[in-house]
Amino acid sequence: MPELRRDPILGRWNIIAAERAARPSDFKHEHTEVTGGFCPFDNGHEDKTPPEIFARREQGTKPNEPGWRVRVVPNKFPALRIEGELDKKGVGMYDRMGGVGAHEVVIETPEHVVTPTGLSNAHFTEVIATYRDRMADLMRDPRLKFGIVFKNVGSAAGASLEHTHSQLIATPVVPNIIVRELRGALEYYNFRGRCIFCDIVRQEREHGVRVVVDDPDFLVFEPFASRFPFETWIIPARHESQFERLGDREMGRLATVLQDTLKRLEKALENPPYNYIIHSAPFHAHDAEVFRGVLGPPPVLKDGGLEHYHWHMEIIPRLTKVAGFEWGTGLYINPVPPETCTEYLREAGA
Amino acid sequence: MPELRRDPILGRWNIIAAERAARPSDFKHEHTEVTGGFCPFDNGHEDKTPPEIFARREQGTKPNEPGWRVRVVPNKFPALRIEGELDKKGVGMYDRMGGVGAHEVVIETPEHVVTPTGLSNAHFTEVIATYRDRMADLMRDPRLKFGIVFKNVGSAAGASLEHTHSQLIATPVVPNIIVRELRGALEYYNFRGRCIFCDIVRQEREHGVRVVVDDPDFLVFEPFASRFPFETWIIPARHESQFERLGDREMGRLATVLQDTLKRLEKALENPPYNYIIHSAPFHAHDAEVFRGVLGPPPVLKDGGLEHYHWHMEIIPRLTKVAGFEWGTGLYINPVPPETCTEYLREAGA
Repeated sequence: MPELRRDPILGRWNIIAAERAARPSDFKHEHTEVTGGFCPFDNGHEDKTPPEIFARREQGTKPNEPGWRVRVVPNKFPALRIEGELDKKGVGMYDRMGGVGAHEVVIETPEHVVTPTGLSNAHFTEVIATYRDRMADLMRDPRLKFGIVFKNVGSAAGASLEHTHSQLIATPVVPNIIVRELRGALEYYNFRGRCIFCDIVRQEREHGVRVVVDDPDFLVFEPFASRFPFETWIIPARHESQFERLGDREMGRLATVLQDTLKRLEKALENPPYNYIIHSAPFHAHDAEVFRGVLGPPPVLKDGGLEHYHWHMEIIPRLTKVAGFEWGTGLYINPVPPETCTEYLREAGA
Repeated sequence: MPELRRDPILGRWNIIAAERAARPSDFKHEHTEVTGGFCPFDNGHEDKTPPEIFARREQGTKPNEPGWRVRVVPNKFPALRIEGELDKKGVGMYDRMGGVGAHEVVIETPEHVVTPTGLSNAHFTEVIATYRDRMADLMRDPRLKFGIVFKNVGSAAGASLEHTHSQLIATPVVPNIIVRELRGALEYYNFRGRCIFCDIVRQEREHGVRVVVDDPDFLVFEPFASRFPFETWIIPARHESQFERLGDREMGRLATVLQDTLKRLEKALENPPYNYIIHSAPFHAHDAEVFRGVLGPPPVLKDGGLEHYHWHMEIIPRLTKVAGFEWGTGLYINPVPPETCTEYLREAGA
């Protein structure tokens, strides 16, 4: 059973998941390349993955057999497991809890396609709908507090299979960066009474110099203090804290805008390794550990959403290496200003 | 001129250093291997680096000529520059300042040695003394608030030359992770009246299961909530917030303990890529932006040091790849428990 342990100084939880590797010799310094060859995600190989949790499939076809369009299975080497008790306890001055959670893989197509830009727009819309449906399902588990959808493309970005897929992890704690985002946004809200993400959308549209795609529903831009070259964010124009509440029309728009953005990155950077990540509010607005402290209670809207937080997407091309300075300080050295990246990504769309 | 920009949501500063790379095509996805061939750090190649800032050299030899044992030069592609004004200002809702600071390279030996464990203990003690002397010099610049010493070994850890060297960066802001360490330690101190690092040393010595080397002056251990396999910390037993105040005797002990620890990692993991980083308190205890807020003023000792913070060293072997989940959440999945790593590192010392 994996476990969560809390760093007593930074208050940051980490997952110790011993089942994923065994001896020091298991660590190759040469990173394994993502190769072709046998692919467990291909059509007809359904028995090579754990049994499916969910699938969008043709009427009349059976689970774990062909006929699916998008298929969700548990990760074969899960960081967290859905079975078990939280069993929170102290170990001397330290804190730990059981590694209860979900770790799922979204196989985006039965065909051996290696990039989400290779899917039709209608098909990719089904992928986004699958993200939404799985998140909405997992938030019903009272042990789980937070869920995140992410994608790793290329070996340098942590992918071990090239067949286009995404992952979803749900955790029994609200992770560190999300807590900091929620608190940072609440400080801003407490002072100004506005959502900082809504203000960023407004300011970026006015300035224009970092805007890659100005869709009426989604703003695609390079953030002002970007950590990495070509770090790209997508923020929905309509205020909403929960990704799971995405409407059907917006889902189609997001698929279009995201495919457009990824195509630009693929063109400008020649198919770079990258990660994309969907940041959404915790499952339950009032989770105490997020909002405890002097900031006061969060502004909860009538529909249960948060007025100060805004779901969004971050795309991180993995072009630079993170070295000792960044690990030690959290201060990133970005060699390409976001305004320059914006120009290249605009050109790439022309 | 590089500039610092503040992420408005997380409050995290990043450095935009445009001079370090130019066009998207400059980003190779294949990471350049650290190779042999011509080395600008070798004896006799002093004119292939920027002019030296400092050197420990034989009496009667001249700057930028052979005769040195340890040599410090500015980084050829600095993330920050010592010339210029801070020029702090707002850009709409955002904050920026000029990239004033220092970025130095410590060339640890004139011989072409590729690991610090290949240096004699007396020589490595001189390297540590050089770290201390440079930090002590930089803290006199009133524009600078914080300095960090770090080492990148191997291409995967961000090194571009194999000749054993370290780097030092001094910044006009206290970086995010250090602010969070200072605050986390102050919360603990406010509640208990003790330094959390001193308590960790005490608890780890009592438990024993994560102790790699129990030297009377320095504890080497695997942290309870380690992010990475074989993440290893070195904490001095004597309370001291500033690395720059290291005494001569302790300097020799640190050189011994650090070389011992690195040898164990090299043996257990077959010369892994790694980073090491020295975390030390900001140059000036009262830097307002670190301690503002509800935690109250920090406990300053008579000698000007901080009672709640403790300098220490973090060693991070770069064995696993950081993927979308970690970037999105700050929650790390560590496949090898620190207790297991401890056993391997103890064996490696036998």
